[in-house]
Amino acid sequence: MSGALRIVELEELFAALTPAAVIAAVRNGLIRHARGEVSMPPPMQMLFDEPAGDCHIKAGRFRDGECFVVKIATGFYGNPERGLPVNDGLVLVFDAKTGSPQAMIRDRGWLTSWRTAAAGALAAEAGMPAGARTLGIIGTGHQARLQAEWVTRHLDIGNVVVFGRSAERADALAEDLRRIGLTASVAPSIDALCESSRLVVTCTPSNDILLPAGAVRDGTHIVALGADSPGKQELDPVLFARAAAVMVDDRDQCADHGDLSHAVRRSLLAPDAAIVLGSVLAGNRPYPRSTADITIADLTGTAAQDVAIASLALSVIDGAHGSTVRS
Amino acid sequence: MSGALRIVELEELFAALTPAAVIAAVRNGLIRHARGEVSMPPPMQMLFDEPAGDCHIKAGRFRDGECFVVKIATGFYGNPERGLPVNDGLVLVFDAKTGSPQAMIRDRGWLTSWRTAAAGALAAEAGMPAGARTLGIIGTGHQARLQAEWVTRHLDIGNVVVFGRSAERADALAEDLRRIGLTASVAPSIDALCESSRLVVTCTPSNDILLPAGAVRDGTHIVALGADSPGKQELDPVLFARAAAVMVDDRDQCADHGDLSHAVRRSLLAPDAAIVLGSVLAGNRPYPRSTADITIADLTGTAAQDVAIASLALSVIDGAHGSTVRS
Repeated sequence: MSGALRIVELEELFAALTPAAVIAAVRNGLIRHARGEVSMPPPMQMLFDEPAGDCHIKAGRFRDGECFVVKIATGFYGNPERGLPVNDGLVLVFDAKTGSPQAMIRDRGWLTSWRTAAAGALAAEAGMPAGARTLGIIGTGHQARLQAEWVTRHLDIGNVVVFGRSAERADALAEDLRRIGLTASVAPSIDALCESSRLVVTCTPSNDILLPAGAVRDGTHIVALGADSPGKQELDPVLFARAAAVMVDDRDQCADHGDLSHAVRRSLLAPDAAIVLGSVLAGNRPYPRSTADITIADLTGTAAQDVAIASLALSVIDGAHGSTVRS
Repeated sequence: MSGALRIVELEELFAALTPAAVIAAVRNGLIRHARGEVSMPPPMQMLFDEPAGDCHIKAGRFRDGECFVVKIATGFYGNPERGLPVNDGLVLVFDAKTGSPQAMIRDRGWLTSWRTAAAGALAAEAGMPAGARTLGIIGTGHQARLQAEWVTRHLDIGNVVVFGRSAERADALAEDLRRIGLTASVAPSIDALCESSRLVVTCTPSNDILLPAGAVRDGTHIVALGADSPGKQELDPVLFARAAAVMVDDRDQCADHGDLSHAVRRSLLAPDAAIVLGSVLAGNRPYPRSTADITIADLTGTAAQDVAIASLALSVIDGAHGSTVRS
C-alpha cells in the first residue's frame, strides 16, 4: 500500500522558514525555470463573482526532482468582512515515481504569499536603479505589507512610501511598517509616490489601469505583481512600449494574463521582447540599465516558485531547524 | 479563522457509496454540464516518462453550488511492480463563498474510478443497441473490471467477453467476473470480441489504434474511455467518420485529447458534429439508432463528474447511511 499522507500545519512553516532561505530557494526556482529545467503545465484558474474571489491552481516539478507539487491558493476579497483572511489554500507534494501523495502542507495561502514576496524582492533586485533609497508600494493589503518588508530587507532600503485607494488602510500599513523599524509614510497621490520612489511595487487586485504612464519618472523600476488572472491590470500598457527592459517570471503566463498581456493585445510589445527574470538572476547582477531607463518586472507567479518553496519547507522541517519567517 | 479541514478516508467512501447512487449523481452531473450549469476550467495534465505516469487535475463547480472541487488523480503504470496500485490521488472540496478548504477526500483515485465506471455505464445506456446481450471489454486493468461490473448491472446484461493484450491478465479478469456471477470468457482476438458483442467498451492506456475500423460490426455501440491525455488513442479514427452518432462527455476535451481528437486532426469529423452525452441522458432514452448504425461515446472524464461524486460522498457520509460500492 502507499504510505500515509503527512500533514504539515501552518505553525510548522512559520517556525521553519526564514525570508533569506525562501528568497534563495525562489531564486533557484526562477533560474531553473529560465533554464528549462522545470516542467509546469499552464496554470488553472477559477473565478467567482458572488462573492468575488479566485482560485489559482499551479502544478510543476524540477525535471530531475523526486516530487511534484500541486498548489491551490484562493483569494476572496470580501473575507475580512466575515472575519476571515483573504487568502487560503494548501499545497500538495507527490512522489514523482509513483504518483502517491506524500504531504499536504496546510499553508492557508502563506507559501504563496511568501514565494510571491520573494519573487518581488528578486524582481526588485534584478532591475534595481543605482542609488534608489525609497521603495514605493501601491496597495495596502497582506501582500503589500510583505513586499514592503521583504524588498526593503533584501535590498537594504530604509524608506517606504505607501499609496492606497483607502487612506485609512494606507495609514495603517505605514504604521505597521514603522513598528518593524522602517521609515514609512503615506503618499497623498500616485504621482507623489512616483516622485519620491525610483523603485515602485504594485500589488493590488485592480482590474483597471492604476499606474498611469505619465506618473512614472525616468529611471524608475516597476515591479507589477497584482495581475495574476485574466482581466486584472495595474499598469498603463503604454509603459511597456516606453520601457528599456521588460522582465517576466514566465513569458507565456505574462503574455496570457499578466500586466504584459494588455500591452501584447494592443501590440505595444511582442512577448518575445520580454526577458525571463530567472536569466537576469542567473547573472548575479541587476539588469544593466542606463540612468534614465524605465524598466518593468511583470510577475504572475509560477509553479517553479511553488515547487521551490514546498521543497524547502519539507526539507527544513525534516531537518528541524531554521528560525521564524514572521517578523 | 477558517474552520478545520475535514479528512475523509477511503474506508468511509467504500461504506457510503453504492453504484446506483454514484450513477444517479454522475447522470445529474453530466446533464447539468450539458445544460451549461457547471463551471470547469480546462483540465491540467502532467505526464511523466520515467517511470511512465500521468497526473490529471480537474476543477469545477455547479454554478449554483456552495462548494467547488479540485480533483487530483494519478496513474503510474509500473506501480504494480512496486506493490502499489496504479491509481492514487485525492479530492479537495472548498467553500465557494470563502475559498476555504472544507474537506480532503483521501480517495486514492477511487472516486475517479467510480465516476468513470458510472460514465461508462451511462454512455453504454445512451447508445445501447436493442437486444445486445453481451458486453465486450477491451482492457484488463482496474477500470476494465469496474466497467464490466457496473455496465452489466446497470443494463442488466449477463455475458461479458474480455480481450487483453496479455492473455494471462484477460483470463484473470474473466475468472474475477465469473466469481461475481457473470458469464465471462476470453476472446482470442479483437475480431472475435467484435463478432460476439454489439456493445464494446475500450479501457486501456493505449497510445495507438487498438480497435481497427474493419473489426467493428454494423449495429455496434462503442464506449471509448482510455484516451484521456494527449497522445492516447484506442479507436481507428475512420470509425468517427463511419459512425451514425458520436457522443462526447465534453466537446472541448474530446476534441483536444480524447479519441475524437485524432479524427478531428484528420478532418474526419468536426467537433460540432458530436452530441454531448448529457443531452442524450436528459432525454431518458437511448439515442434513436437504426439497427445497422455504429455509434461511439468518447469519454475523457469531466470535472462535472468529480463535483457530482464528491458532493454525493460528503452528503452521504454526513447522513451516515448507504451500503457498499465494493461487490
